[in-house]
Amino acid sequence: MNLWSLKQNGYDPKETIKNGNRFLIANGYMGVRGTVEEAEPVDLPAINLAGVYDQNGDKWREPVNAPYVFIKLILNGRELSLKAAEPLSHSLSICYRHGVFERKTDFGAAKIGTKRIASLADPHLIASQVSVSFAEDGEAVLIMGLCTDIWDINGPHLFDFHCKEGEPLLCEAVTGEKQIPVCVAQAVKYDFDAVETFRTNGKGIFRVLRFHTEKGDVRTGSLFTAVYTGQDDPSPSRSAELLCERAKRQGWGSCFHKNAEAWENIWKTCETDLEGDEKAALSLHASQYYLNSIAPRHRGNLSIAARGLSGQTYKGAVFWDTEIFLFPMFVRTQPEIARSLLRYRIETLPGARKKAAEYGYRGAFYAWESQEGGREGCTDFNVVDVFTHRPVRTYFRDKQIHISADIVYAMQQYCNITGDRSLLLDGGAEVILECARFYLSRMSRQFDRDTVDLVDVIGPDEYHERVTNNAFTNRMVKFCLTSALNLREQFADEPVFLKSLIQKLDYEKDWELIRDAVKNLRGPKERDGVTEQFDGYFSLEDCTLEEVRSRLCDPREYWGGDHGVAGPTQIIKQADVIALMELFPEDFTDEQVAASWNYYESRTEHGSSLSACMYALTACRIGKMEKAWELFQKTAEIDLISGGKQWAGEIYIGGTHPASNGGAWMIAVLGFAGLQIKNEELTLSPRLPKQIRNIRFRIRYRGSLYLFTVTQEGWKKETIG
Amino acid sequence: MNLWSLKQNGYDPKETIKNGNRFLIANGYMGVRGTVEEAEPVDLPAINLAGVYDQNGDKWREPVNAPYVFIKLILNGRELSLKAAEPLSHSLSICYRHGVFERKTDFGAAKIGTKRIASLADPHLIASQVSVSFAEDGEAVLIMGLCTDIWDINGPHLFDFHCKEGEPLLCEAVTGEKQIPVCVAQAVKYDFDAVETFRTNGKGIFRVLRFHTEKGDVRTGSLFTAVYTGQDDPSPSRSAELLCERAKRQGWGSCFHKNAEAWENIWKTCETDLEGDEKAALSLHASQYYLNSIAPRHRGNLSIAARGLSGQTYKGAVFWDTEIFLFPMFVRTQPEIARSLLRYRIETLPGARKKAAEYGYRGAFYAWESQEGGREGCTDFNVVDVFTHRPVRTYFRDKQIHISADIVYAMQQYCNITGDRSLLLDGGAEVILECARFYLSRMSRQFDRDTVDLVDVIGPDEYHERVTNNAFTNRMVKFCLTSALNLREQFADEPVFLKSLIQKLDYEKDWELIRDAVKNLRGPKERDGVTEQFDGYFSLEDCTLEEVRSRLCDPREYWGGDHGVAGPTQIIKQADVIALMELFPEDFTDEQVAASWNYYESRTEHGSSLSACMYALTACRIGKMEKAWELFQKTAEIDLISGGKQWAGEIYIGGTHPASNGGAWMIAVLGFAGLQIKNEELTLSPRLPKQIRNIRFRIRYRGSLYLFTVTQEGWKKETIG
Repeated sequence: MNLWSLKQNGYDPKETIKNGNRFLIANGYMGVRGTVEEAEPVDLPAINLAGVYDQNGDKWREPVNAPYVFIKLILNGRELSLKAAEPLSHSLSICYRHGVFERKTDFGAAKIGTKRIASLADPHLIASQVSVSFAEDGEAVLIMGLCTDIWDINGPHLFDFHCKEGEPLLCEAVTGEKQIPVCVAQAVKYDFDAVETFRTNGKGIFRVLRFHTEKGDVRTGSLFTAVYTGQDDPSPSRSAELLCERAKRQGWGSCFHKNAEAWENIWKTCETDLEGDEKAALSLHASQYYLNSIAPRHRGNLSIAARGLSGQTYKGAVFWDTEIFLFPMFVRTQPEIARSLLRYRIETLPGARKKAAEYGYRGAFYAWESQEGGREGCTDFNVVDVFTHRPVRTYFRDKQIHISADIVYAMQQYCNITGDRSLLLDGGAEVILECARFYLSRMSRQFDRDTVDLVDVIGPDEYHERVTNNAFTNRMVKFCLTSALNLREQFADEPVFLKSLIQKLDYEKDWELIRDAVKNLRGPKERDGVTEQFDGYFSLEDCTLEEVRSRLCDPREYWGGDHGVAGPTQIIKQADVIALMELFPEDFTDEQVAASWNYYESRTEHGSSLSACMYALTACRIGKMEKAWELFQKTAEIDLISGGKQWAGEIYIGGTHPASNGGAWMIAVLGFAGLQIKNEELTLSPRLPKQIRNIRFRIRYRGSLYLFTVTQEGWKKETIG
Repeated sequence: MNLWSLKQNGYDPKETIKNGNRFLIANGYMGVRGTVEEAEPVDLPAINLAGVYDQNGDKWREPVNAPYVFIKLILNGRELSLKAAEPLSHSLSICYRHGVFERKTDFGAAKIGTKRIASLADPHLIASQVSVSFAEDGEAVLIMGLCTDIWDINGPHLFDFHCKEGEPLLCEAVTGEKQIPVCVAQAVKYDFDAVETFRTNGKGIFRVLRFHTEKGDVRTGSLFTAVYTGQDDPSPSRSAELLCERAKRQGWGSCFHKNAEAWENIWKTCETDLEGDEKAALSLHASQYYLNSIAPRHRGNLSIAARGLSGQTYKGAVFWDTEIFLFPMFVRTQPEIARSLLRYRIETLPGARKKAAEYGYRGAFYAWESQEGGREGCTDFNVVDVFTHRPVRTYFRDKQIHISADIVYAMQQYCNITGDRSLLLDGGAEVILECARFYLSRMSRQFDRDTVDLVDVIGPDEYHERVTNNAFTNRMVKFCLTSALNLREQFADEPVFLKSLIQKLDYEKDWELIRDAVKNLRGPKERDGVTEQFDGYFSLEDCTLEEVRSRLCDPREYWGGDHGVAGPTQIIKQADVIALMELFPEDFTDEQVAASWNYYESRTEHGSSLSACMYALTACRIGKMEKAWELFQKTAEIDLISGGKQWAGEIYIGGTHPASNGGAWMIAVLGFAGLQIKNEELTLSPRLPKQIRNIRFRIRYRGSLYLFTVTQEGWKKETIG
């Protein structure tokens, strides 16, 4: 078994959409869905662009998909494509080591094989190779080009198409809302004689090669597709053309090699392997691949969307997933990526301030679904009722306030692990202070008591809206407030910096409030050793998950809110108290964790991909290794096997699951291997499931790179860089 | 046109349920629905008992219906009843002056006429007269008795029936929950020869009279039915039998006369007439009748349910309707009734304390739907979804907190108008202090500001749940707090009383909090002169009532809450800001009232019978007399003509509308006549609609009785007692 590649044999149209995610190649700048070259919009093909958003009318704002690479073969007048012909055999595969998509289809009359990469060495480049072996003599037509018949969830987003025939082909358009130019050029190299013509129509711009072929002939060509937008280049068309030409000059082999080399450089810093279960080893590799393929490397201030670069699901927005589920791997292996994720938050502080002001608060209230500039993508009506088809008022946008503290949590992690204070000096401290200030204005004090509450919030478990004193949120907020307080000590050696920041923010009066809040903000309540998720949670109906499921009148119903089947019960969507316990392990004894784990796990639907990994991590702590192993598999395999939920009602919600990808890494390294920092030293307290023989992983800590090897017998740490 | 009676000719089974309300007779102890004597459960017949509640299993708790009076005639083997025979003519009527129900049906072979009263002179007595004119010779069977086949919404409530044949008949049972005995006895008097036998079966206990009759014969009998429960008498059966015997001795004429006399005594204190529009005059009389017929006169500590004694709708519970909509008439005409309504609240203070404690608050949080002992009848799931048939989480019980302040508002009205402080000395002051204390513990202060908020409440407009700083609620609460503060001045001459009360309640520390709260509790916000109903109301979607209605997928859908069509819009169920302006007229200029009236009226569904009268009253203030007249008619005629909504989904919600009945009186006296107190004197500032020639009404103020006459030209006040 190849532990670095996934292959699917056979053609099943029902798998097409899932395969688009499973076989995704990406390089942080763009994601190319794993669809075949002759795909049509119904197959959800896409070149999804990172951080380029557009809104069409009052539909949901979402990232833009560029015109995509198209190839189709016609032999003796017969279209040899999956849309028109039954293949004798067909396979898709992906090499997770180097991000190579490969497709092989035998139509009898000809076999088509393609490979493609989204180059990690050049973020704007997609290189493809196509090879056809003919089993018949005849006249062949090979159509290759850029398809403008784009699949969008809430589109269209591109207008004013201009297509230029020639070498390279050029397709230019602009987005509707902000008039951002999106330019795709495509050069071609082939080693056989053909008559070349061009065709431009409503579906795109295409190059048509006509040639005679004989049985046994093999014809090979390469495509070099360059994508630029006005957001990343002042002359996107020119740059696209130049890149095509350069790539063409260098050729497929060179492009392929450079990409592989770039991937090898990544694996040097973060490769994580396990032995003992091949499927688990593969899925752990896949998780790392998916995560690394969407990491921003071409810009230092970009973040990662909740479905990565696999499409427009969830509006291509950045959620708390990034800071809490993706960040831990990056900050421990590639701090420059972690830094970019945080710089995105620092640079979108104005958006967070604007959102706070909009609700009458001070400070920084980060977007629940953050788009460019910190713009809030989340609407007040984020769910559609299946019975009435009316949008349902949801409170994710206005009540899920833990997001600001989550960012502060990640920022402190960054400082602790890298030892780098420059991020705080360069905007990070301001973010912390402004987030703390937001909470000061969001909290309230019971009028006749000293206790301070956070009322009317949503915690990680979104099924319960508008609750008071969500234990997770309150603790996160306390962390944020404490972080703000600590800045004064932390930068005691930078008095000028500190003083000017306090002056700039007019912060002097807030210190006292913060101290008061830290002291009086309501901590978690317990019953029988179980931490209560929020005030009154234990008074809700206590029934089984099966009972709640049986109350559904329609399988597509939304479970949450007052109207949903889970809302009035103790059934929760995902880890909430358990997430709290994972993020603040020192606050709880093992007994407390065990009591809450046992209570909540049976009441958790795991309806979010953020759930299983938190339960797995805490399971490691309390020695529930069978459960930990089961939840690890579920987490690591999500994009390989199940693909998760693809549809919610009529809305496509599929895509890759970066949070689970990050979760898989966390379970392996933080859970099984038990990586911790003690006295500023990395150390392990391993709890390997019996299925695992050993785990090997790399960690960067305070500038050094370490290789850890953990076996059932012990572990060792080597400094390798 | 008889201005004191309503008659309906013809028989239409579809009108049966509405007629049960329209032709209701009641005397404060019980209500007898206006159904014919041969009615079956499907016709919703009932003798509804005031203040006697029972819960069957986990169904809604509701008041108990007693076995009811049944009469049926069989002539020559043919049943002459509306259930079996087509009548040649049929009519029902009610005399509102004396509370007399009358029924006349001509079946051809015989005419049946009945009259009945629920005696105002003796609360336990129902007297009926039946008279049959025969148009055929033959054998007649007259069945008369007590039917135990009782209509209940959430029953059955009576068990262990014991029926005793003889004179009088006796039917005994006990309630299921509290084992309260319910006893009904029935004696009969008739002036003709008949063979009398008895029949007891699963449907009740019956007396069967068999007699020969000849064409032209008229046979008359009287029934004396006595109803007692263990809640109001230590030997209910014995008392019932004794009352029957006494009434029988005195005879129908005497019973009828005494009842009429008792009613005349009521009219001496509160008769209100208008001239100029006969329909309006009649409906104003009807409103007064409905209201007086359900007023507690047999006990000094009973209140009135939201649907009076017309059945079990709304669980027979006491709502804020009583204090805000019914109380104004009683306190100005029959202060002893007003006192009973308030004593009910004083004596149910323990229930209100219990409810506050249940939610973690101090003081007194009165039940939203108050049953005996202040027990909360409102559930957390008070609506059923029409699509899923699942109960919907509603927040009436926990968030509609203005109820406690509404009670204090009525209490202050009582003191101002009667000049009687004894109620405050005897428990009222304690209620005021405990209500104020509840709000102290319910309020919160924004952490970084001085302002005090009431977050997460429901105001009068129930369609918008969980709002912050509802202008009505905040003002009501401020009133309550001020009332508490004022007690110290008010009882400066009773230092011992005051001191011991403060000591008993350990109240010393709360004075300072109250002063702080009065000063800092958020007052109303305005935009373009319009008072905002709650924080953020103006940001909701602003669309027309028609637009909102057009979004319904099912006409029975609940409009409110996040899921309802109105919830996310500015469409409101009923007067909210306008109720505030009516109750606190000095807070607002005429211009402010006009601006808010114009804004809100077009956005109000008037989906509650509490709505129109508030709009009518404020319309009088700002001179919108056409609108005032239209809304007066709507309010006054509700139980005569439309009968309001009868069903909500599969739940019967029909009944009489005491709040509208009280509202009609308020519009006439407080609106059209403009009754006010100025410098401790009653005075008027009339605004008669052009349709009205004059209004005449009686008011009791500080012990004296006054007769006011208002014409288009002027008004006069006479002291008459």
